[in-house]
Amino acid sequence: MSVPTVLISSLGLMGGSLAAALSRVGWRVLLHHRRPEVAIHGEELGYGKAITDLTHALGQADLVVICSPVSTIADTVRQLASLHPRPVFTDVGSVKGPICAALYDLGQAGRYIGSHPMAGSHLQGLQHARANLYHGCMTAITPVELTPEHPIALVEQLWRAVGSRLCRFTPEAHDQAVAQASHLPHVMAAATAALLGASAAPLAATGFRDTTRVAGSSPDLWADILLHNRDAMLQALQFAQQHLQQLEQALKNRDISASAAWLEQGRAGRCRFEQHAQIDVPSVAEEA
Amino acid sequence: MSVPTVLISSLGLMGGSLAAALSRVGWRVLLHHRRPEVAIHGEELGYGKAITDLTHALGQADLVVICSPVSTIADTVRQLASLHPRPVFTDVGSVKGPICAALYDLGQAGRYIGSHPMAGSHLQGLQHARANLYHGCMTAITPVELTPEHPIALVEQLWRAVGSRLCRFTPEAHDQAVAQASHLPHVMAAATAALLGASAAPLAATGFRDTTRVAGSSPDLWADILLHNRDAMLQALQFAQQHLQQLEQALKNRDISASAAWLEQGRAGRCRFEQHAQIDVPSVAEEA
Repeated sequence: MSVPTVLISSLGLMGGSLAAALSRVGWRVLLHHRRPEVAIHGEELGYGKAITDLTHALGQADLVVICSPVSTIADTVRQLASLHPRPVFTDVGSVKGPICAALYDLGQAGRYIGSHPMAGSHLQGLQHARANLYHGCMTAITPVELTPEHPIALVEQLWRAVGSRLCRFTPEAHDQAVAQASHLPHVMAAATAALLGASAAPLAATGFRDTTRVAGSSPDLWADILLHNRDAMLQALQFAQQHLQQLEQALKNRDISASAAWLEQGRAGRCRFEQHAQIDVPSVAEEA
Repeated sequence: MSVPTVLISSLGLMGGSLAAALSRVGWRVLLHHRRPEVAIHGEELGYGKAITDLTHALGQADLVVICSPVSTIADTVRQLASLHPRPVFTDVGSVKGPICAALYDLGQAGRYIGSHPMAGSHLQGLQHARANLYHGCMTAITPVELTPEHPIALVEQLWRAVGSRLCRFTPEAHDQAVAQASHLPHVMAAATAALLGASAAPLAATGFRDTTRVAGSSPDLWADILLHNRDAMLQALQFAQQHLQQLEQALKNRDISASAAWLEQGRAGRCRFEQHAQIDVPSVAEEA
């Protein structure tokens, strides 16, 4: 297989890191951003070549990766796919159901396959891009029924090239899964952080630090994600409230064994995660 | 001031680490555990001298630190204080209100001052003890009304000796503060972990890892802590459920600005924490 040409559209943390990683392993990388000076800056950083003519660039690309916020992805793919018949499109959006539904015809035609690399940072922007962002992370691929295997293989080749592991989900199963694995954790972290009063702040230590780290992320970006995964999030929020209510009842009843059993469910969930985790799970200090 | 003699009672992670740290800075450390072989093991590790006669040891000690689970602290202090009139007692319990109320007379007499060092680990036991556990952490001291300054100064000297910072709270204000800074974060982490389904586990990444780290802690130890801080926790659980409900409503209404405003409250709370934090707040990757 010859080295593919990939066009990265939108150079924030995700797109910039992908461009950096692909350039490093020798892929031909073309850079596009709605503000051309950002693509030029990406070129200066050695992440690829800033394009000047979008349609021409699309004609050279085997693969286009849309790295803009989730609310913009479907429209961008539709628009760029209409400009040139050649490239296969994928994206890095955290939600897949609405996007894959909006692009269902392109999915069946093998021109769009959803991707979601489970990597990122609460730090945004090209200045925080790093070539190892995707190394060791899991990437979910969400082809629809009848998507041909050849373009799927191309998308998988992209993620393997930057060191990612792969799994396949239907778009709907993906969204349910990320609600539990990523979006609910985000919301719980934000709720925990919001409830820290000023007088309590001096006592917050490593447990609070880790539990609430992701609460520092961009509210606008995440509001977009949560609304795109609205159905799964509404269900997850219901489950979370019901689950907290169970502990509330156990404490009301002064029931130590029910309280311990409730906490044990959390430990079991943590074990489910650690069995799958191929990321570092450090043993760091916490307050008790 | 001459170097004080301190008796550490109960050598788990907290007591073992305190003994290790105090020995390292030259304090005279006596080791006590309900199973004498644990104290002997502590002596072998160089953490102090295992005692053979408890009453005799109490007569030599300026300070006794009770490091057993919160449900046992008040009774242990009461019992040991009755054996010898000399030492001042403190503890490392995560909850202070019930203990300080049960020992109110000893508090007024300057024989007991509550301590709560905001350090620890989800890893328990003497084998995980380390001399730097308390370095840089905040320790809350909870004297009661009329507690004389001299024994307070002795307890503060202890925590400064192991590198801790200090703040004073009333026992009740302490318990409210740790509900927000430590116990609610723990509960939210456990709830988040419990709700991770098996099929979602492969997609959990660094955000999940950090948000749920403390969910790996001992359920029995934490059930004990939560029940001792029952009133403040019931209130915190109410607030958490109401707060989650606000997001649920915003998502139901498809209200992106209300969703972003909700998330912004989390970011503001995270900022309150970071302003106070003198612990490392690393910038690590997360999924988005």
